Amino acid sequence: MIPTPALVIERADLDHNIATIGATLPGVKLRPHVKAFKCTALAHRLAAAGHRSFTCATVREVEGMATAGLGEDLLLANEVLDREQLRRLAAVDANVTLAVDSSEGVARAAAAGITSVLIDVDVGLPRCGCSPDDAGRLADEARAAGMNVRGVMGYEGHLMMVLDRRERISKVQHSMSNLLRAAEAVGGELISGGGTGTYDTNTWANEIQAGSFLLGDTQYARLDLPFRQAIHLECSILSLNPKGWAVANAGLKALGMDHGNPSWADGEVLYCSDEHTTLTAGEGVTLELDQRVRLDPAHLDPTVARHEEMWLMEGAEVIDRLPIDLRHW
Amino acid sequence: MIPTPALVIERADLDHNIATIGATLPGVKLRPHVKAFKCTALAHRLAAAGHRSFTCATVREVEGMATAGLGEDLLLANEVLDREQLRRLAAVDANVTLAVDSSEGVARAAAAGITSVLIDVDVGLPRCGCSPDDAGRLADEARAAGMNVRGVMGYEGHLMMVLDRRERISKVQHSMSNLLRAAEAVGGELISGGGTGTYDTNTWANEIQAGSFLLGDTQYARLDLPFRQAIHLECSILSLNPKGWAVANAGLKALGMDHGNPSWADGEVLYCSDEHTTLTAGEGVTLELDQRVRLDPAHLDPTVARHEEMWLMEGAEVIDRLPIDLRHW
Repeated sequence: MIPTPALVIERADLDHNIATIGATLPGVKLRPHVKAFKCTALAHRLAAAGHRSFTCATVREVEGMATAGLGEDLLLANEVLDREQLRRLAAVDANVTLAVDSSEGVARAAAAGITSVLIDVDVGLPRCGCSPDDAGRLADEARAAGMNVRGVMGYEGHLMMVLDRRERISKVQHSMSNLLRAAEAVGGELISGGGTGTYDTNTWANEIQAGSFLLGDTQYARLDLPFRQAIHLECSILSLNPKGWAVANAGLKALGMDHGNPSWADGEVLYCSDEHTTLTAGEGVTLELDQRVRLDPAHLDPTVARHEEMWLMEGAEVIDRLPIDLRHW
Repeated sequence: MIPTPALVIERADLDHNIATIGATLPGVKLRPHVKAFKCTALAHRLAAAGHRSFTCATVREVEGMATAGLGEDLLLANEVLDREQLRRLAAVDANVTLAVDSSEGVARAAAAGITSVLIDVDVGLPRCGCSPDDAGRLADEARAAGMNVRGVMGYEGHLMMVLDRRERISKVQHSMSNLLRAAEAVGGELISGGGTGTYDTNTWANEIQAGSFLLGDTQYARLDLPFRQAIHLECSILSLNPKGWAVANAGLKALGMDHGNPSWADGEVLYCSDEHTTLTAGEGVTLELDQRVRLDPAHLDPTVARHEEMWLMEGAEVIDRLPIDLRHW
């Protein structure tokens, strides 16, 4: 038996999710975002399914993907200004493209020996990205500094959770009109955007940076998407209180809590503390000491980032241990 | 310059917090809880200040403390039912006391070769702990199984954040009356309870399991406690948007989010996403690209658990790198 707390992945659900996204976004139409699962073993499965270009969020993710032999086309979809990090990035033995959204970022990337960039454009999410009106100028600066400009990216993260599909489509279209305007000014072949929430509604970007589809969380499960919840936090019951609650041996240190409590199919999660989750069993459900229960995380990415490994399961059988080797910065 | 994102600790504030708690709880009156900082280098500082008995939450914390030569008196203030984890615990070369709250727990601990236990009592927090009426019976079972029963513990975690001091005292007194009743039935020398929020108001326990006082968080800062915020998340500004926001290169993967967003002394935190925090600078504050800013975490324990190391600082000077060596389970 695997030790708890542990992240477990059901192979059939994982395979379903890979097949499902590939039907809509074959090959390079999907640029899987490794920040959601931080695991090169899972990235290899996506590569085997034909998706060989990847999105990364940190320098360590880029380094780890290159080391794992998955460096064919790595996009670091994030700004890097730190000169030491830029030096590390330029030293990676892979095809690396870096996002830039400022003149300073362009200048530092060029000085560090970065050869390919992509212009990150503000498409409505209050985060990184230049104004669409500035994108052409930044591309010119990058080319003048000798770098290859591969195109644009813009992440419509503020639209991932628009529950109504028609409203989502219309808002994504408006958001992407800014990206298309920038793309015209910038040139290059890439118009990169999207995420799991808009993987089939963002038809304006020519590649989608989705990651959460692979393993799932209860937040994305609220949308009308065809993916399955493939990952669970397996824990063991430590304590049964005669007043009616049970306590599992995994708490908020094993979970990302920014989207709230995890869910439990057989009852209610009362609350999480550092090392415990207090549960009440649903009607007809009886818990015993040391029994295993599985919780579904509310937010995948920060949950995975808290663990050292995941276990690939086929029911009770362990198929593989998957190290979460892309953690940290 | 240290790479960002990074946890930084100001030495003067750390020293102040150690001296302040020692004035109220000298020596073994404080049993520091390592789950809050997960770092044997910091535990050594507490030991040097006279606190040589420690509280742990996980088997790995116990193992790590023993390896670091801090195994004089380690309390695992948590139930363990898993036989493999119990075997590991019994193999630790240290004086280890384990919390038990069930007959099954007592039987498994004895079978694994655990020699000392303490009865964990429900004092009002819906989590682990037996009924005060069951404590004596469990102690008898443990003694009959050949184990030393060192006393009782009860964590009044539901009272840590009672803001009014007089109300806190009266509620803690009521909660601890249950623990004292159990202590009478159990015997032994330890009546262990408390935490940072009640370190000076819980005068009924004879040792206090506080940990957060050492480094602090914005949740505890709401109380009338004399501790200083010693830890900060140092990050770098990645992007400045003409619409008025700035983006720092650390997000919710570098923070515990269950108590909400971190705070920033020089402005407002708009929101955190996986790898970013979007900020708006306060009046008169100007931010530049790649500038360092420091955020204060809302919840210490899960924030520390997300990192590999902390940096001990004296202003801009790095004094020491502190590995967070007690992470995971």
